[in-house]
This record gives sequence, C-alpha cells and structure tokens, in this order.
Amino acid sequence: MEVFYSRSFEGGFCTLDLEESGHCVRVLRHREGDEIFVIDGEGTLYTCVLTEASPKAAVARVVKEEPDWGAHPYWLQMAVCPTKNLDRYEWFAEKATELGLDEIVPVIGEHSERRVFKPERLRRILLSASKQSLKGAIPTVAEPLSVKEFIRASSPDDLRLICCCFEGEVPRLSINDVLAGGQARIVVLIGPEGDFSREEAALAIQAGFIPVHLGPSRLRTETAALTAVEAVYLHHI
Amino acid sequence: MEVFYSRSFEGGFCTLDLEESGHCVRVLRHREGDEIFVIDGEGTLYTCVLTEASPKAAVARVVKEEPDWGAHPYWLQMAVCPTKNLDRYEWFAEKATELGLDEIVPVIGEHSERRVFKPERLRRILLSASKQSLKGAIPTVAEPLSVKEFIRASSPDDLRLICCCFEGEVPRLSINDVLAGGQARIVVLIGPEGDFSREEAALAIQAGFIPVHLGPSRLRTETAALTAVEAVYLHHI
Repeated sequence: MEVFYSRSFEGGFCTLDLEESGHCVRVLRHREGDEIFVIDGEGTLYTCVLTEASPKAAVARVVKEEPDWGAHPYWLQMAVCPTKNLDRYEWFAEKATELGLDEIVPVIGEHSERRVFKPERLRRILLSASKQSLKGAIPTVAEPLSVKEFIRASSPDDLRLICCCFEGEVPRLSINDVLAGGQARIVVLIGPEGDFSREEAALAIQAGFIPVHLGPSRLRTETAALTAVEAVYLHHI
Repeated sequence: MEVFYSRSFEGGFCTLDLEESGHCVRVLRHREGDEIFVIDGEGTLYTCVLTEASPKAAVARVVKEEPDWGAHPYWLQMAVCPTKNLDRYEWFAEKATELGLDEIVPVIGEHSERRVFKPERLRRILLSASKQSLKGAIPTVAEPLSVKEFIRASSPDDLRLICCCFEGEVPRLSINDVLAGGQARIVVLIGPEGDFSREEAALAIQAGFIPVHLGPSRLRTETAALTAVEAVYLHHI
C-alpha cells in the first residue's frame, strides 16, 4: 500500500506538493480516476480519487476519512540526547516510528559530545518512516533544548522516566514494573554516551522523574532508547 | 573497559592474534605489566597481565577467570531471512547482540529476494558488538539454509515461535503471552520482506511452531526480528 502525504485539504479535495505529485504521477504513473491514499500527518488516512494527475500539483477528491489510522493506545515522548554518530540517532528514530511514538525531543546533556542538532533532516526521515509503516500521524521532532530545560518544562501529569546508569548510587526500578502502573502518557529521558551529569540526574529525580533500568545489558544510547520504546510498545500488545 | 578476544589459552597464558595484538600494543600502547581483559568468545572473561607486549603476538598471564560473563538467563536462537539491504540485517544482529542472543540462523525463504548470504562479515560484526557490550560469549552465525530445512532440523524441546503475517488466516498469540510460559530455550523464525509462503507456514505449524504476532504495527523484517529479541530480553529483566 502506497501512502502519500499532504497538508493541503480543502472543500473535499486534497492537493499534493511538488515532490509527492511527482512521485504519484511521474514515478508511479497514477492517472485521473485512480484511487490513492493520503495521510495528513496528524492521524487521518484519506482515501481519494485522483482528479488532476498533474506531476507538479496533483489533486484528488476525498471519498473516505479514517481518523486515528495506525494509532497506538498510548502517548510517548522520547527525550534522547543525540549521539555522536547521527546515523545511530536517525536509526533509532526510524525504528521508534515503526513501533509507535509521538514526539522525539533532542536534548543536549552536560556530557553530550554532540551539542548541535538540526531537526529538519530527522523530520523528513520520520515522514517516510510513517508512510512506510502505515501510520496517519507523523511523530513530531521538537527543537533541541538542554536536559535541564527539558526537565523544568516537563509535566508532573505524565509518567516521567529517566534511564540513568548510576548503578548502586540511585535505586532504580525495572521499566516493566513502572509501566505496569498503566499510565497512558509516558515520557522517557535518555542521556548521552557519557551519561547524565549528577546534577542533571538529581534535578530530574527531584522534579519527580522515576529512575529506571533497562536490564543488565550494556546498551548503546540508541539501543537503550529503542529498548524503552519497545518496552512501552510490547506492554500494550 | 576495553576487551580483547582470543581463542588461544594455554598453561595459564593467553596469546592475542595479529589484529588484537596490534590494537593492544600499537594502538592502545599497552606495556608489560599492564592489566588487560580478554574474552574467549564462549562466555569467560579472563583478567590478564601483559607479559610480552609484542604488536604481532602479545602474550598475557591469566590472573582471574569469570565464566558466564555478561550472560543472559535464556537461550535464544533467531532464524531470520536476510534482508535485501544487508545493512539492515547487520544492524539487527548488532543490536540483538547488545541485548543478548545465542545464535543467528540466516534462513532463505521461498519469497526471499536475497538467496545468498555469506556469514563471515556478520561474524566479525558480532565479535566487535560482543566486546563493545561486554559479553564473554559471542553469538554464533549458522551457515545459511532454507526455511523448510530449518523447520525440519528444529527441536521440539525448544519453544519455537513463527512470526507470520497471515492475519485472520492463522490464529496468532501475542509473543508476550507465549513467553509467559517461561521456557528457557527459545527459537524465533522471522520471514522475508514478502513473508513466508503458505507451505512454509503450514510446515512450521505442523512441526509445532507457535504462530505469534508482534502487535499491530507494520514492522520491517529487521524491526520485527529485533522486537522479538526485545520481547525475550524484557521478559527476563
């Protein structure tokens, strides 16, 4: 199933942008009357019939709307420090999108080697991952901020977890045990290769974040982040 | 913690091969008397003292042995059809090693686009992933065989699961429900991008494989494979 993306829906018609129109008409050779599927990136799948097979601005008539298409039964925000090697971060983001998450927040920790992150490229990756994995909603990518700013801005209404490695120093629960509580809004904070600073961890715990562990294995940053997403996903299947 | 690998232990001494010796002596500049850590790839970590800092064949005296170093409390064999894009398969194998598994079997399905697979490169990747994630045992990579050959050779004593996508046609349990049984030896069979053939799925079920699903998301082959490893891993933390 091929899915297109558009933000432009008006009067029961949808227009594809230049890139999507070219893919639809030039590459896939769709013609007037063909049925195509379009997501709005906010959760709805539109079944449409192509009315103008323009390779620059294809237009289609909406015949059916499916809200919450490919939705998951939780809200998950992953605040993860970008890795030194960006491929690994983008890999995590693609896989997390396949499984199901709502927002990625690139947070910069005091021990982060990568201190600058441009979200644009990641947003394009999540768009194509969402289309590929048949999800109507595309996870958002927040503007980068510091770990401490993120902690201060977080809401006590959410189940907020921090995966830190200060073994022995900070008592930690297994992420499974915490998820067993069944909260629907979950925030997971994952530190950089060099872990959080003690100040960051203390601030998070003071703010109400629950220190959790992801089991005995020594996981890379991106593997730890994906394991947290898997734990939430598998908890709901 | 830097870990070296050697298969050559004799009379309380361990010898590193050319590559590991060069890394130990030339790159990391270890000298006689330095403490180094060596795994045998079969589960034991050896704490050693370098006695000959040769960049071609470094020798170290074993002072301590830790069996089952970084071991996991289950035995997991993943029989996964190699993906068209090998990077994705290698990525799965690296991540699965970080989490914990025992053997990867590259199986070729009737719908597999990739029909040839050379295990050597993957073995090197698993060696470095095992060192990086501090595991004494390196997962083995079997020689490729067909899905049907693998099914016929599998043992009824193991908990054998097949992840197939014939939704509605084959009644499937959630992998969590099946793992709740608590068996320690687990085999998971994952098909190619085009799924198993009906004959392969029927043969597996007839042989006693339990059809399982990995939840509602549409996952790529390598994501499905890693999700199965995560389910087993998370079930044991």
